Amino acid sequence: MPYTELIEDRLRFMEIDENDIVELQQARQYIEPEIDKMLERFYEHILSYPEFAALFEDEESVRRARASQKKHWLEELFGGRFKSSYFNKAERIGQTHARVGLAPSWYVGSYSKMLTQFIGRICEQAQVEGRSACETVQAICKAVLLDVDLVTHCYLEAKNQAMREVLRRATQFATDMAELSDGLSDSVSKAQSAAALLAGTEAGSAEHTKRLQDLLGQIESVGEQSNAIDTRIGELQFGDRLYIEDDPSTLDRLKSRFSRD
Amino acid sequence: MPYTELIEDRLRFMEIDENDIVELQQARQYIEPEIDKMLERFYEHILSYPEFAALFEDEESVRRARASQKKHWLEELFGGRFKSSYFNKAERIGQTHARVGLAPSWYVGSYSKMLTQFIGRICEQAQVEGRSACETVQAICKAVLLDVDLVTHCYLEAKNQAMREVLRRATQFATDMAELSDGLSDSVSKAQSAAALLAGTEAGSAEHTKRLQDLLGQIESVGEQSNAIDTRIGELQFGDRLYIEDDPSTLDRLKSRFSRD
Repeated sequence: MPYTELIEDRLRFMEIDENDIVELQQARQYIEPEIDKMLERFYEHILSYPEFAALFEDEESVRRARASQKKHWLEELFGGRFKSSYFNKAERIGQTHARVGLAPSWYVGSYSKMLTQFIGRICEQAQVEGRSACETVQAICKAVLLDVDLVTHCYLEAKNQAMREVLRRATQFATDMAELSDGLSDSVSKAQSAAALLAGTEAGSAEHTKRLQDLLGQIESVGEQSNAIDTRIGELQFGDRLYIEDDPSTLDRLKSRFSRD
Repeated sequence: MPYTELIEDRLRFMEIDENDIVELQQARQYIEPEIDKMLERFYEHILSYPEFAALFEDEESVRRARASQKKHWLEELFGGRFKSSYFNKAERIGQTHARVGLAPSWYVGSYSKMLTQFIGRICEQAQVEGRSACETVQAICKAVLLDVDLVTHCYLEAKNQAMREVLRRATQFATDMAELSDGLSDSVSKAQSAAALLAGTEAGSAEHTKRLQDLLGQIESVGEQSNAIDTRIGELQFGDRLYIEDDPSTLDRLKSRFSRD
């Protein structure tokens, strides 16, 4: 499905329409002066959890993440800009989360802190102006759920990608083994026939010598098949080590969970 | 971690406190008279999407799902009952979604329809009473995000379980193959030695006859090792067919995606 259709489809499913986009764009003026304080409370909250704190190397990386979030909230979400750049960004965030190992559970939960602050600010302003905050709050909730939806979707896609790769490798290995095993069985059968023929000839005869040569050839062929199996097994283990190093977020944790099973 | 600690942990992270629980419980009286109409609109909306419609066999199964949702919203969420029964239920829902193949993306998106209706009803009532709906709406948003969080978490756990099983089977197969291959190499080496010794004896001598018997024995042993490899490969393929049938939701779709890759 083309990307533009996917965007339309998601917005329609979430019932995000033109009115919501106007609501979001109008809300921006009330959020913008407060966003720094909101993000400060957000990071103070999430960084008190080791699961999050572990994701940031230093103060500088927290600052970078905060600047990127500020841009996201103000320009994308309160900009009402649900275009391909927004979807591409959600995809990158989901992939990053899959790579660093931030489960959607933490991500979804952390939205609570931003959403309640947005609602608080919008309600406060509506009260001052003596109007209902309802439609603005509904629009913000839909946009936040769209965000959650997309990042979760992209996170899962990244994990599925890793799973497909494991399945592909495992399937390829089993297929190669089946093929090598067929070759081996064939060589073994030939060696067995050659041995039976040798046993049936008179020792010292020319035929005996020829049969013995045949048998030695067949045994050599069995040895080659056996080596090929050994080599293929060696490749798999080497390949798996590489693979685990390539994607530690998914597989190392799977391995460690695995070992606790 | 014990379940009770997990609950406390999630509620603390989402900042759902006693005030929120009171807000939710008080909101119930305004939601309850409207919940049937809200759910009617919800199902009308989601069933217009084939991804959802395919999940329900007939009208009766839609009725059952609707009754279960009504109970969930009124008793659990607006009951403010975030106890182990609530967490257990979220776990079952996540597992069911993984089994029937309802991706979190659809699930998260569908919350939009219920949440906006809740907000609409609460704001309407607050306006009648001339008070702010802010804290009630914040409590509902947190509770809905907790719901999204838990079901997504449990869905992912179910998928990880499937992935761990694939890894376990693939690892076991590779380990078994490595062991069988060692046995094969050993037998092949012995057969090669026996063949070399045979070739070195004078045809017709008693030693020649003995060496030939030795070699025939070694070839038989190679045949047994080769058969063991063949049997193990046969088991894997049979086991995989069974496995794919056991969990069509995860693996069949992976397979079909796989084939499109």
